[in-house]
Amino acid sequence: MSTNRNTLSIFALGGINEIGKNMYAVQYDDDIIVIDCGSKFPDESLLGIDLIIPDITYLQENREKVRALVVTHGHEDHIGGIPYLLKQLNLPIYATSLTLGLIDIKLQEHQLSAETELIEINEESEITLGNIPLSFFKTNHSIPDCLGIVFHTPEGAVVHTGDFKFDLTPVNDQYPDLHKMAKIGSEGVLALISESTNAERPGFTPSEKLVGKHVEEAFRKAKRKVIISTFASNVNRVQQIVDAAIKTNRKLALLGRSMVNVVSVALEKGYLTIPEGMLIEPYEVHSLAPEQVAILCTGSQGEPMAALSRLASGNHRQVEILPEDTVILSAGPIPGNERNISRIVDSLFTLGAHVIYGSGSATGMHVSGHGYQEELKLMATLMKPKYFIPIHGEFRMLHHHSLLAESVGVEKENIFIINNGDIVDIKGGTAVQTRKIPAGNVYVDGFGIGDVGNAILRDRKQLSEDGMLVIVVTLNKAEGKIVSGPDTISRGFVYTRDSEQLLKDVNRQVTKIVNQLQKTHVHQWSIMKKEIKTTLGQFLYNQTKRRPMILPIIIEV
Amino acid sequence: MSTNRNTLSIFALGGINEIGKNMYAVQYDDDIIVIDCGSKFPDESLLGIDLIIPDITYLQENREKVRALVVTHGHEDHIGGIPYLLKQLNLPIYATSLTLGLIDIKLQEHQLSAETELIEINEESEITLGNIPLSFFKTNHSIPDCLGIVFHTPEGAVVHTGDFKFDLTPVNDQYPDLHKMAKIGSEGVLALISESTNAERPGFTPSEKLVGKHVEEAFRKAKRKVIISTFASNVNRVQQIVDAAIKTNRKLALLGRSMVNVVSVALEKGYLTIPEGMLIEPYEVHSLAPEQVAILCTGSQGEPMAALSRLASGNHRQVEILPEDTVILSAGPIPGNERNISRIVDSLFTLGAHVIYGSGSATGMHVSGHGYQEELKLMATLMKPKYFIPIHGEFRMLHHHSLLAESVGVEKENIFIINNGDIVDIKGGTAVQTRKIPAGNVYVDGFGIGDVGNAILRDRKQLSEDGMLVIVVTLNKAEGKIVSGPDTISRGFVYTRDSEQLLKDVNRQVTKIVNQLQKTHVHQWSIMKKEIKTTLGQFLYNQTKRRPMILPIIIEV
Repeated sequence: MSTNRNTLSIFALGGINEIGKNMYAVQYDDDIIVIDCGSKFPDESLLGIDLIIPDITYLQENREKVRALVVTHGHEDHIGGIPYLLKQLNLPIYATSLTLGLIDIKLQEHQLSAETELIEINEESEITLGNIPLSFFKTNHSIPDCLGIVFHTPEGAVVHTGDFKFDLTPVNDQYPDLHKMAKIGSEGVLALISESTNAERPGFTPSEKLVGKHVEEAFRKAKRKVIISTFASNVNRVQQIVDAAIKTNRKLALLGRSMVNVVSVALEKGYLTIPEGMLIEPYEVHSLAPEQVAILCTGSQGEPMAALSRLASGNHRQVEILPEDTVILSAGPIPGNERNISRIVDSLFTLGAHVIYGSGSATGMHVSGHGYQEELKLMATLMKPKYFIPIHGEFRMLHHHSLLAESVGVEKENIFIINNGDIVDIKGGTAVQTRKIPAGNVYVDGFGIGDVGNAILRDRKQLSEDGMLVIVVTLNKAEGKIVSGPDTISRGFVYTRDSEQLLKDVNRQVTKIVNQLQKTHVHQWSIMKKEIKTTLGQFLYNQTKRRPMILPIIIEV
Repeated sequence: MSTNRNTLSIFALGGINEIGKNMYAVQYDDDIIVIDCGSKFPDESLLGIDLIIPDITYLQENREKVRALVVTHGHEDHIGGIPYLLKQLNLPIYATSLTLGLIDIKLQEHQLSAETELIEINEESEITLGNIPLSFFKTNHSIPDCLGIVFHTPEGAVVHTGDFKFDLTPVNDQYPDLHKMAKIGSEGVLALISESTNAERPGFTPSEKLVGKHVEEAFRKAKRKVIISTFASNVNRVQQIVDAAIKTNRKLALLGRSMVNVVSVALEKGYLTIPEGMLIEPYEVHSLAPEQVAILCTGSQGEPMAALSRLASGNHRQVEILPEDTVILSAGPIPGNERNISRIVDSLFTLGAHVIYGSGSATGMHVSGHGYQEELKLMATLMKPKYFIPIHGEFRMLHHHSLLAESVGVEKENIFIINNGDIVDIKGGTAVQTRKIPAGNVYVDGFGIGDVGNAILRDRKQLSEDGMLVIVVTLNKAEGKIVSGPDTISRGFVYTRDSEQLLKDVNRQVTKIVNQLQKTHVHQWSIMKKEIKTTLGQFLYNQTKRRPMILPIIIEV
């Protein structure tokens, strides 16, 4: 886009009309400051794709203006895309201590740790990036050390909330700083960019403390060992599980790579307190009495390779689930994961375990980290913004969030429900949304970033549904005769041994087509291939009601 | 299995440890009576599979003993497999009028209608199949005309509940016959086979009448046209929607093939009352004032090709959703469909519609057709069985149902949680479970029934994730030299134009392998192909971290 002087621009490169892949930016003249750089997992239609990251074309085209990446907190949907961003743009990263620790694990995996400038900030920090001063405020969420950001631009203050809830009885002093938020609001907020994840849910999120109480009760009731699964990054939850184990005289073993990683970072950085001698190694589990053991593991979303899944299928090397063990799923199902979770719960019951599971907060073993409607209204009320941009969520969430903002006094015409790539420009106190920059999904597949596009995905879809049939014919060019073949190779379509007649018919048809075209002196292989594809495609559909990919190969000797 | 004389055998061919594909049988000596024959939809791991049906090997091997198929009600998971069963076994089918009507739609599609004997029964019927007398009792469920079955065997009475809830204020007189159930229980029940779908949910299902009330309120509030989507087979729901339209002076249009089919059968058979002139054709919608129109459509599960999905994406030929229209999703999401439903809700909001949606009964627009815990206990209490076999459900549901049965007095050792294929044998009043018959999933893919197995699915999985690479080399046999190629064809793996260097390297490697093997006088193509696959597989993984299927083709001239 052409530079609009003296203009404040706000835009999203990810996180709008979707859950995940959050990435936003604030620009004033020649300073672009990026907020978060998340990833998201593909749905089942994106065959073979490992990860989705934001399209950063605009940042690449304006690389000399991009001052820094500021990260609100350490969840995957806010940090998962960072290594891919850094491969294109060498940016300093500003975040709190725990967030930086989690980012650094990623950077090490991608051999980017040494060359990246990580700058620790906290809620008291005041920094200036380019010409824009930034300050911060503490929020509460399902991971410690979360920040909201205030951009003090010449047009006015822009507030980005990050993810938040208002837990007024937080664990480990992770309180939301209501007083600072009120002060920011009093001083005047031009635009509030606020998260919408739970905008459909009425009321106020229950406190994390509630989960601690229920976990402790379950630990106390359990007659044999307890296995509890939660998100590794929910350090406050982990603290409460540790506390429950202490109170019920159980040692704690950790299972799962990300659990071990996060606990180690959180311990090192002081976000977690675990007494000496409390943690045991997985191989020590069997040498203790079952009622003296608790196991904290990954896999609460039913991930097939994670610890809980391996425990449920009896495939863990060191730990076995036995009858009368208690298994607690301390997490809500992320939409799309329900079936995998159910499969694990069934297996656990088959092993004779007591299983405490269920959606949402029904069991008391989980609360959301995202504020419900009353909390979203509380944020909008504290900030009293002139302009409001709901972010983080599918359209229906943004829609509901905009109604909530309206209900607490934001003018309807000052609310912008944007798309990724839409720019809200504010100049002289007036906001307009007219411009657009590139924004979309970049697919990561193996080492490939963005090299898999629609054509490849279309082929994968066809191959996945009906397989393929390769047909090889060798022709003598001079005489125009078939020298060998046709031969067919079928994969994912039919078994060769079960379908001899079908494949014989295929060969006969191909022979006929080739001979006919030769007779009429059509020697263009492309015409011959097309004719084979069309005729065979129809024939096979009539015979099998399947549409395999047909690959004719004509060899000329 | 060898015949056990004077033995009552009960077994499942589908419906246990799964939701769907229900099929059960009761056998006494030389009489086998089959109950239901359902289908289920594949999950996303079964690539390209259209439908799953039960394995009927045992019935085929004992075809001279199979007396009839008795069907409890007309849902897909109880009738969807019937055409495939009939192609193997010509059986008479006993069911109530509506159920037969829905079965007949299926049989017509498969050209099986003329040759099949359909025998109408009702809750008063008493029939004898082989030497086994059967009677029936009326139940309530989310489709009218449901039956429970009593098998009066020499060993005692066996009761199969079908699907049920206890709706005490039912729509259209579809009451559960408590008095007859009590009588059956008083006369003595040897074994109760009872459905478990909602065994995890405490309490008592709300009445279908409640939905009618909420639908009417929403119709009344709607300022413009109303679009409401539900399961076509829920004829009682459809009746209430018709009634709401009448009361609010709206004409009703039906969208979606299955809605039109089911309404037509239900009208013809007298399960639905719609006044003359009430129904309009879809093309008439635009000629009426919006507040005079309601539209009843399929697609409440987010099915991409169904009416609601086409309306939401603006792709319906005759009806358009406009701002301020009201759209009601009158159905709960079947697990696995959440994402598709959300996508539609988002699109509807984007069009400016008021959308009434949400999981389960939260909106009052849906109630379950399956009894909750108190209702399952009520059935077990009424029947007072000696033996109890929970059916219809995943293991966790069967587990909870068995606890419920125990809580109302069934002896723990008399409860059999079986698998598909397990046989419960009862002789002289004593039940044992030791024998097994074949039972499993048969995949339907196009016209193929059971011809797609694990090898094809494995190939489809590999093809779907990383595509394939075909490599063609033509060799002169006499001289052992490459005449043409290697040539590569990539589909679903990389774009040829973007990966010239990679494909050049592939060709070079293949040339090297072929020449080396020729030099060492290895002329077996299988060895050469294996070597190409292994070496290239490793090379491509190192280069791309992908594992395409590699198909080497060696042509000899």
